[in-house]
Amino acid sequence: MGILVIGSVALDSVQTPFGKKDDVLGGSATFFSLAASFFSKVDIVATVGEDFPKRYVTMFKNKGIGTAGLTVSKGETFRWKGRYDYDLNTAHTISTHLNVFKDFDPQVPKNLRAPDFLFLANIDPDLQYRVLQQVKRPRLVACDSMNYWIDTKRKSLERLLDKIDILLLNDAEARQLSGESNLIRAAQLVISFGPKAVIIKRGEHGVLYFSKNTHFVAPAYLLETICDPTGAGDTFAGGMMGYLSRSKAVNDENIRKSIIYGSIMASFTVEDFSVNRLLEISKKDIQGRFKHFRSITKY
Amino acid sequence: MGILVIGSVALDSVQTPFGKKDDVLGGSATFFSLAASFFSKVDIVATVGEDFPKRYVTMFKNKGIGTAGLTVSKGETFRWKGRYDYDLNTAHTISTHLNVFKDFDPQVPKNLRAPDFLFLANIDPDLQYRVLQQVKRPRLVACDSMNYWIDTKRKSLERLLDKIDILLLNDAEARQLSGESNLIRAAQLVISFGPKAVIIKRGEHGVLYFSKNTHFVAPAYLLETICDPTGAGDTFAGGMMGYLSRSKAVNDENIRKSIIYGSIMASFTVEDFSVNRLLEISKKDIQGRFKHFRSITKY
Repeated sequence: MGILVIGSVALDSVQTPFGKKDDVLGGSATFFSLAASFFSKVDIVATVGEDFPKRYVTMFKNKGIGTAGLTVSKGETFRWKGRYDYDLNTAHTISTHLNVFKDFDPQVPKNLRAPDFLFLANIDPDLQYRVLQQVKRPRLVACDSMNYWIDTKRKSLERLLDKIDILLLNDAEARQLSGESNLIRAAQLVISFGPKAVIIKRGEHGVLYFSKNTHFVAPAYLLETICDPTGAGDTFAGGMMGYLSRSKAVNDENIRKSIIYGSIMASFTVEDFSVNRLLEISKKDIQGRFKHFRSITKY
Repeated sequence: MGILVIGSVALDSVQTPFGKKDDVLGGSATFFSLAASFFSKVDIVATVGEDFPKRYVTMFKNKGIGTAGLTVSKGETFRWKGRYDYDLNTAHTISTHLNVFKDFDPQVPKNLRAPDFLFLANIDPDLQYRVLQQVKRPRLVACDSMNYWIDTKRKSLERLLDKIDILLLNDAEARQLSGESNLIRAAQLVISFGPKAVIIKRGEHGVLYFSKNTHFVAPAYLLETICDPTGAGDTFAGGMMGYLSRSKAVNDENIRKSIIYGSIMASFTVEDFSVNRLLEISKKDIQGRFKHFRSITKY
């Protein structure tokens, strides 16, 4: 029954060499669900503050995204403020105000407790675990994490990893989690913690996928315009899981294609600030870029 | 009539996190010609000193590499000493002793002045130009350069670029030469200087190929063992031009395949110091890796 995502819905203030935006729609669950909505039914579990603009909730609904699990809590919406320099691969956080997210105890609404796919976006691994306990074991569980949790909550993260199917990380995080600099060996060590597969996101250098017996190397889609990388990773996950949830089987062939679709969705996101590009594009644009991707990688 | 390469034959002293080697065989023409020799007849134009071990000349001959243009000059062989840290993408030069290479005035032997393909490895663009003037226009001329020549001999480099077919650079050099940080736009600006195509080498992140109307994105072959990156770029060029020179036509399809073969040859070189791996492998190993490359990039 569709995809469930637990993550953040936030207001971002972002400065890049190409402009500056204040209090625009952001958050992992936002980017994920918008990307996934092109392929599949998706429901959000998250919380926002009383200041969260209602037009964004309307927008989610118009996109067919389920908001029954998007609660409004007393206080202000989670806010992230960041800056990117010409090296757009690195986000420099200026401030993080968790606000209503600080005491967030995610509750999956009763009628959403049997999702087909579950995405645990990057939050405290204890919260991710608690969400996993609330649902009937989905057909596929993917999970994102970050250096902060590897540092401060390794035990909790390892407990979680034993219960999931796919872990998404960037290369530095894969190295940190495994203690191994070579990415092939790092990935196999991560897999030994429990997940069936690990996806290593390398920004403009593409994506590596590892399972126990195979790997897949996907370059990123080359762009002339990269405006704001915020949300690229969660958009990737949304495109990937969206495509995969529509496939007949979760097998190597479909996972590879889903990774290309994830990369394509991310390539749209970074072309403008916030979710602007995701609101502009159509399924036809996605198919067009998939076709082009094939043409520039074929040999 | 085969491939002609003008470049260096050197003795390298290299230290990496995986070991240390002194006065081992190196140089751009060395790596290039050994890689190309798996596919095609190749002749070297270079000079070495009186101290150059004769066993290396014998080795070239045994590999079918033409050494009629490899002269012995009074003095010592060109020596490079360098170090790589855990970030194997960056070579730290400790010393460069040009020795006999300082006054090298390359003379192409008469019977080698009609090569089918010509590779101008990274040396002074004035010397590269002088070699180009000595030969009947080959079917394909490729050329390597570096930040130092872009800085100090831009005019000479631009004169050369107008006469060649393919320029090979790394991404920082492409940005420096074009003054443009986006690689798609950088490549098109470089092409406006004259070459029909530009190949941007990104080390462990693969290769980008740009012509006026198309581009091709190739990931690098993932390795568990990377011992010493010295010579990877020239090995790439040798594998690429070797394969291409054996193809029926220089067209987009064959250029793409040649780039994969170049990447595969480079993947062998970096697995050990100096040319050790290139001396160990067989055509069967190359084919095996090509097949594996296909299997990990297919979708």
